[in-house]
Amino acid sequence: MLKFTKTDIDKMHHLYRINLINSCSGFKSANLIGTKSEDGISNVAVFSSVTHLGSNPALLGFFLRPTTVIRNTYNNIKNTGVFTLNHIYKDIIVDAHHTSAKYDENISEFEMTNLQEHYKSEFYAPFVKDCPIQIAMRYVEEYDIKANNTILLIGKIEELYIKDGLLEKDGFINLSEGKVVSINGLDGYATPQLEARLEYQRPKSVE
Amino acid sequence: MLKFTKTDIDKMHHLYRINLINSCSGFKSANLIGTKSEDGISNVAVFSSVTHLGSNPALLGFFLRPTTVIRNTYNNIKNTGVFTLNHIYKDIIVDAHHTSAKYDENISEFEMTNLQEHYKSEFYAPFVKDCPIQIAMRYVEEYDIKANNTILLIGKIEELYIKDGLLEKDGFINLSEGKVVSINGLDGYATPQLEARLEYQRPKSVE
Repeated sequence: MLKFTKTDIDKMHHLYRINLINSCSGFKSANLIGTKSEDGISNVAVFSSVTHLGSNPALLGFFLRPTTVIRNTYNNIKNTGVFTLNHIYKDIIVDAHHTSAKYDENISEFEMTNLQEHYKSEFYAPFVKDCPIQIAMRYVEEYDIKANNTILLIGKIEELYIKDGLLEKDGFINLSEGKVVSINGLDGYATPQLEARLEYQRPKSVE
Repeated sequence: MLKFTKTDIDKMHHLYRINLINSCSGFKSANLIGTKSEDGISNVAVFSSVTHLGSNPALLGFFLRPTTVIRNTYNNIKNTGVFTLNHIYKDIIVDAHHTSAKYDENISEFEMTNLQEHYKSEFYAPFVKDCPIQIAMRYVEEYDIKANNTILLIGKIEELYIKDGLLEKDGFINLSEGKVVSINGLDGYATPQLEARLEYQRPKSVE
């Protein structure tokens, strides 16, 4: 196996390190976060750190990095209290990835891509039309991560929308059926194929 | 689309809710966390919340849930300061999933599965042999998440091991080549296929 020590990582070129460390944690979730400013300018941005925190209450969190100099997503959430999560699927990979470009706060990424904003249930933040999973989220709390000056932002699920045909009898959402993608590193998009669902595991008896 | 409101989610059967909410955030990382107690008893457990926090310093985090009544992983990390991350790959899905069974702290999951512990560079925590990515991690800090009584535990990368043939010229690790899997919900294991790597995105000119 190849080996990199802490010293190797500290010394490597920063672009090489960004690729390496971003791809070393495993496959990541691929979400578009939709927000709208108080002035009514919508925003949509790709995030790969959305993580399940718990089911009851239904909480999800994500990390905002200090390198995101223009933090429209964060500012909009703080000012309005709401955001949406929309799963990236195979057909929109190119447009979804383009939302990582740093646009000025006065420009909506919906205007600069083929992604279409739409609204449901009078929820203030925009959803991304046709995404197989769309979630209305409300801000709960945040934590300043001292180790690297990032923010963990936590929200609760207000409404959950699922494309027809993905939900199984026991509540499992078949993401592969929805062509939901996952992210490898900074810029790799992968389509997962469900191999198996395994049973709840109990300890084997010790002999 | 199917719609679930917050009230629907609050009222549903708890097993249905666990499946639904666990699968609604998108595909998750699939890692085995290896630890060893001060008494020398090794432990390995599946986690699906390992997330990239930043590249410089190289930090990864994961969430521990209060429902994990037997928190051997947490106790071992707190007592020894170290742990390993090992990516689950296609060949070990069944054994990896079995580590979710709640064994007593005196029993090593390495004894109850075909997963093989091994040691490198005098690092105290066990690695999982043959995993395509293996990472030696050192505890940095933790945050108590008030919203649901979970813990965010953050570690820094001490050593990173990558199976031959996965690392590309610019530092990108091709996880699909290593048969690394991702997790859908609580119990679904999927094999992602890399579709594309996309370029760094700059804003389009506004007309």
